Amino acid sequence: MRIVLDAMGTDDAPRIEIAGAVEALREHESDLELILVGDRDVIEAELARHESVPNRILVYHAPDRVQPGDSPASVIRRKPNSSIVVGLELQRKREADAFVSAGSTGAVMATSLFKLKPLPGVDRPAIGTLLPTAEQQCLLVDAGANVDCKPQHLVQFAHLGNIYAREIMGRAKPRIALLNIGKEPGKGDELSASAHGVLSSEDGLDFIGNLEGRDIIEGVCDVVVCDGFVGNVLLKFYESVAQFIIGLIKTELDSLTENSLDFDRIFRILDYSETGGAPLLGVGGVSVICHGGSSSKAIRNAISVAAQAVRSDMVAQTASRLSASINDASEEVS
Amino acid sequence: MRIVLDAMGTDDAPRIEIAGAVEALREHESDLELILVGDRDVIEAELARHESVPNRILVYHAPDRVQPGDSPASVIRRKPNSSIVVGLELQRKREADAFVSAGSTGAVMATSLFKLKPLPGVDRPAIGTLLPTAEQQCLLVDAGANVDCKPQHLVQFAHLGNIYAREIMGRAKPRIALLNIGKEPGKGDELSASAHGVLSSEDGLDFIGNLEGRDIIEGVCDVVVCDGFVGNVLLKFYESVAQFIIGLIKTELDSLTENSLDFDRIFRILDYSETGGAPLLGVGGVSVICHGGSSSKAIRNAISVAAQAVRSDMVAQTASRLSASINDASEEVS
Repeated sequence: MRIVLDAMGTDDAPRIEIAGAVEALREHESDLELILVGDRDVIEAELARHESVPNRILVYHAPDRVQPGDSPASVIRRKPNSSIVVGLELQRKREADAFVSAGSTGAVMATSLFKLKPLPGVDRPAIGTLLPTAEQQCLLVDAGANVDCKPQHLVQFAHLGNIYAREIMGRAKPRIALLNIGKEPGKGDELSASAHGVLSSEDGLDFIGNLEGRDIIEGVCDVVVCDGFVGNVLLKFYESVAQFIIGLIKTELDSLTENSLDFDRIFRILDYSETGGAPLLGVGGVSVICHGGSSSKAIRNAISVAAQAVRSDMVAQTASRLSASINDASEEVS
Repeated sequence: MRIVLDAMGTDDAPRIEIAGAVEALREHESDLELILVGDRDVIEAELARHESVPNRILVYHAPDRVQPGDSPASVIRRKPNSSIVVGLELQRKREADAFVSAGSTGAVMATSLFKLKPLPGVDRPAIGTLLPTAEQQCLLVDAGANVDCKPQHLVQFAHLGNIYAREIMGRAKPRIALLNIGKEPGKGDELSASAHGVLSSEDGLDFIGNLEGRDIIEGVCDVVVCDGFVGNVLLKFYESVAQFIIGLIKTELDSLTENSLDFDRIFRILDYSETGGAPLLGVGGVSVICHGGSSSKAIRNAISVAAQAVRSDMVAQTASRLSASINDASEEVS
């Protein structure tokens, strides 16, 4: 399979991307080829600094740079030769199977929608992100792609998350929960009260009801559904609070003892940014979004997420299983 | 001053309340009197188990019990002799200066609104809760009293939080931030994009702009303003994630060393439930809301919060400083 890696996305591009690419190629079977998209000279200069680069790496020139100030929707028109637009165009033309980027989330979103198109029955593709919990990881949908959602959008997120949890995360019967501020049906704002009603009677979902903020970490469900505003605030908060608490404890430990506690295991559990990129769910292709501050390990993991999506034929699986149920749901609530 | 303590609110009432009351009376100057409201026989039996109870404690009989299933709005009519209704009625009649309860948040909210009335210029009183950060604590408004807010409500929360931060938290010039999913003006959902516009041109506020989920913990502001849905999810998540991470680290420590790290200091920093009750901001009285799972220390701290609000004449301060600016704001955005 061929995966496009946007080589110009991280804050330290393309050094981080290329390190992650080399690691991924060494880790993965020989069925993986990577296409690095970006400024050819810069990429080749960086590649030259690595010894024994696997030969399953191609470079595709894309000179435009997306800047932080560029409006996401304008990137397709104004930066047609950017790594994001060129990379996703390769997938549109079926010259690649997946796209991984740590560039502007908004630009990747907008360009993915334009190039890959939403799957039938999906009004708003959503970002799914894995959260570490006391049990297995849990998929948060939507992690920030959509704000001002309507109940039918949350129902679509539930279906998208359900299929992803089953096909990619390997959960036999994913438990779906709705993020809310109370357990009882009818609690919450208009959106969640109404979405609860629809989800309760929705076929093909193991909907376990409302989940409060304090319950997420217990890992009682496989998929948490929410509006992207709440999901994004929660996700960014989680990341920072974990770092903050670990910092507090490190300081405390240092002051008490010479003992040098190895925090690696805890970091691995908590640092969801290391668990790989976040798939854009509901588009007709594979588009994986990483943090701008990603490490090479995060890039390598994101490539693995993309490879897994391609291997399991995620898009076709989603399209076939989704269209019927989502069309039903949309009719009910529209 | 006289503070009413709802003796029937916690999961382990009235044992916890009475222990907290006794601690608070021992801690505070003799200007504090407590009125315990609830089932007289139960309260007196529990009081009898304490030695040398300070005599500044009164018991006021209120036999009705608010049950978890009671709809908050119905409590005033259906449970007129409950500790919540009786306790707030004492304040309405000026026989007490403040009310502290760990009972149903919804019932305390609804009854506070009815008995104490919103202050002029306040459409929706809000719950303010202190979050621990890397710097000073930060006030989150609204922590769950209001969902489906409009921009002018967030502007009112900003004013309420501003006054509370200055008068009670002692911040000379409180920095006010809007919780959002991006830093730039115009980011976010309709509510936050619009609220940002109003807050930016609002007089009397040191509005520092949007704050992302990851920035909260850095403590760069004194007040974070958001819709109660987001605030409630965030708050409950924070509480649970802190416990989760500390648990992870404890397990790791136990497996590595005999060293028994004292986690007390870290818990004190992180456990915002211990920092005392959450004041209901914007009503014409003092109403402090605690967790149902409060400890006696949390109750004691909530009584301190109430006492501080009474001593600093919070309600009059808020009313006088608020009405002009809030009326202006409401006119602009309505």
